[in-house]
Amino acid sequence: MNKSISYDSETVKFIDGGVCAAEGFTASGINAHIKANSQKNDMAIVYCDKPCSAAALYTQNKVKGAPITVTKKHLTNGKAQAVIVNSGNANTCNANGIEIAEGACELTAKALGINVDDVIVASTGVIGQRMSLEPFEKNISILAEKLSRDGYNDACDAIMTTDTRKKQFAVEFMLDDKVCHLGGMSKGSGMINPNMATMLAFITTDANISSEMLHKALSEVNAVTYSMVSVDGDTSTNDTLAAMASGYAGNREITSEGADYDIFVSALYSVMVMFAKETARDGEGASKLIECTVMNAHNKETAKTAALSVINSPLLKAAMSAADANWGRVMCALGYSEADFDVSKVSVDFASSVGRIRVCENGVGFDFSEDDAFKILSEDEVKIIIDLNEGNEHAVAWGCDLTYDYVKINAEYRS
Amino acid sequence: MNKSISYDSETVKFIDGGVCAAEGFTASGINAHIKANSQKNDMAIVYCDKPCSAAALYTQNKVKGAPITVTKKHLTNGKAQAVIVNSGNANTCNANGIEIAEGACELTAKALGINVDDVIVASTGVIGQRMSLEPFEKNISILAEKLSRDGYNDACDAIMTTDTRKKQFAVEFMLDDKVCHLGGMSKGSGMINPNMATMLAFITTDANISSEMLHKALSEVNAVTYSMVSVDGDTSTNDTLAAMASGYAGNREITSEGADYDIFVSALYSVMVMFAKETARDGEGASKLIECTVMNAHNKETAKTAALSVINSPLLKAAMSAADANWGRVMCALGYSEADFDVSKVSVDFASSVGRIRVCENGVGFDFSEDDAFKILSEDEVKIIIDLNEGNEHAVAWGCDLTYDYVKINAEYRS
Repeated sequence: MNKSISYDSETVKFIDGGVCAAEGFTASGINAHIKANSQKNDMAIVYCDKPCSAAALYTQNKVKGAPITVTKKHLTNGKAQAVIVNSGNANTCNANGIEIAEGACELTAKALGINVDDVIVASTGVIGQRMSLEPFEKNISILAEKLSRDGYNDACDAIMTTDTRKKQFAVEFMLDDKVCHLGGMSKGSGMINPNMATMLAFITTDANISSEMLHKALSEVNAVTYSMVSVDGDTSTNDTLAAMASGYAGNREITSEGADYDIFVSALYSVMVMFAKETARDGEGASKLIECTVMNAHNKETAKTAALSVINSPLLKAAMSAADANWGRVMCALGYSEADFDVSKVSVDFASSVGRIRVCENGVGFDFSEDDAFKILSEDEVKIIIDLNEGNEHAVAWGCDLTYDYVKINAEYRS
Repeated sequence: MNKSISYDSETVKFIDGGVCAAEGFTASGINAHIKANSQKNDMAIVYCDKPCSAAALYTQNKVKGAPITVTKKHLTNGKAQAVIVNSGNANTCNANGIEIAEGACELTAKALGINVDDVIVASTGVIGQRMSLEPFEKNISILAEKLSRDGYNDACDAIMTTDTRKKQFAVEFMLDDKVCHLGGMSKGSGMINPNMATMLAFITTDANISSEMLHKALSEVNAVTYSMVSVDGDTSTNDTLAAMASGYAGNREITSEGADYDIFVSALYSVMVMFAKETARDGEGASKLIECTVMNAHNKETAKTAALSVINSPLLKAAMSAADANWGRVMCALGYSEADFDVSKVSVDFASSVGRIRVCENGVGFDFSEDDAFKILSEDEVKIIIDLNEGNEHAVAWGCDLTYDYVKINAEYRS
């Protein structure tokens, strides 16, 4: 990816509506009791009243959830019309996983009167836990009946696991003088590591775009958003980022790169970068969002590698939870990354809404006020700015601090 | 490394004496008050009354402590006679770091009446904290006077930072009908990751071995011991593993591979594998030692990569702290590693002194008693045994669980 992707507030405007903001889409959510004693929604449908251009990206983990196998097969024709998704059980490492994923698609297709291969299926939750088709049999027809333009909140609830906040955003933008909408919902707070940081995200748009260009846009934006988020270095077995485009906006179909494609990418980025940041901020047990920028690297890859190594360091993350300006751990994490740089040129700043402070210059300590640093790092959104002083490429990565609560949340997740 | 390295209890016997167990070596330790308010020893000397064959391995972090630069230079001739080491300040990312490391060597050489380039210098502690030569000026002559055969405990105290237990071992073995000894001391409990798991280790022996073969033995044994330990995925800037051989045992000098070399490697392994396990067990905040064995891999590299990925997973480590048999996280960590294997052939067992239980077979869940699994995983030493069922190479890695205390220890380490 050569060009720089950014959010342009003049052309892209945030609106409400989440995964139902775009024309043609409805959603619903329900508590299907997939996990015993759960009090929350755990099953959802997102539906479009016509077949859409569709594309998806998946986890790079070699151990893949059965739903991924089925969704991949269904998306080979670049078309989809509905999503059936559950939390509470990842349907991964189960002997009958494919059977269940296919069964869920069949039930959904039947309830909605659509083709089975136009159904996207996804699951999130515990791995290797037996699962049955029963919750789908009992609830899919109810979900189909409940579908509505206002169902986005119920659906968003249903995909949350250890998430503490809903992650849904939508934007409005113009393409070819037509008003377009793009929105979505996302979940993920642990097991968040590059190569798709979130476990699940569903994007809908009424823009008219081919499935090939939709896939290209997803890939490009994913590289600078979800792929730059790290909560704990674990990469999930079930990560799925799927998008459907209804075309109801009536713009000329985007079938190649150009000005229209760039506007679409900018709109997609504006939603996905919010997902990325909210996912990092909502990292399991996190008390703050950490944004690490690496500037002036020889090349993009160096900048990315360095930023992710810093964001990933458990020692730095633990220091950040105590607002401790332990910049030596920044240097240490840079040093053990595969990034290529000259230690003696590196400067490090800490910043937040209350100020910015230099702590390291030319690779060695720079006098600073510990009090000021503590104040800066005590904010709930802090920045680490690393200048390699060598080239002119940069990268941004997002993560969070490591707190007691991360351990607590993950110690007995299955119970 | 093609041959298998192991501990042979018939030829190698554990003894007391740590870093002073071998003929010719004395040691001492003192509280030099490098870190304000510290109540413990933080500076030590290890000395041999004659120049030794010497060799060392260092961190692969690009950001290296100044002492490493100086030690490397001093060891170019393969000779050394003393170690000066401190904790409390890593002497890393300091503008005058080299000056201080060289100064410490000069003071040591002068106090002991030896050549300055026969001094090994090492530091561990906070990175990027200003340091002065003063504590060395005040204490090195006292340390030189205090040197004794019994000084190994004082020296071992001095290298500890967040370590909760001394790590010192020694063995006796026969080479060429001569009684030989090999012992050492090691420190490290956080920032522990492959490519030398410990921050500092010093090995002494009275066996007669060339510096080239000593270096070869260190490398081979390091690959299956320290390099297979991971506490938190962070690799320190100061890791140093240094060895000195006095030759006092009087065996024919080992100058090439062969039976004598193999015996020496076995003795070295017996000490270093104990260091590796104790380092993992003493991981910051750890409540238990986790040993992960990957069996029947296509090749050694696959086995190593897979074992380290599992040992490193924060999600699995958190589950282990609660004795939760969440084997899906084992599969997940295998899956996102670079290891090449067939998911559908994998089996996973959990084991400890109270039993062994299968939890996954052919890549899917295997019925097991949660009660039995809980009992097994509640022990303070647990094993994860992964059978890839593909080849006949194996690897063992050591780590620990992730607890609240890891966060506590690392949140405010500098204060």
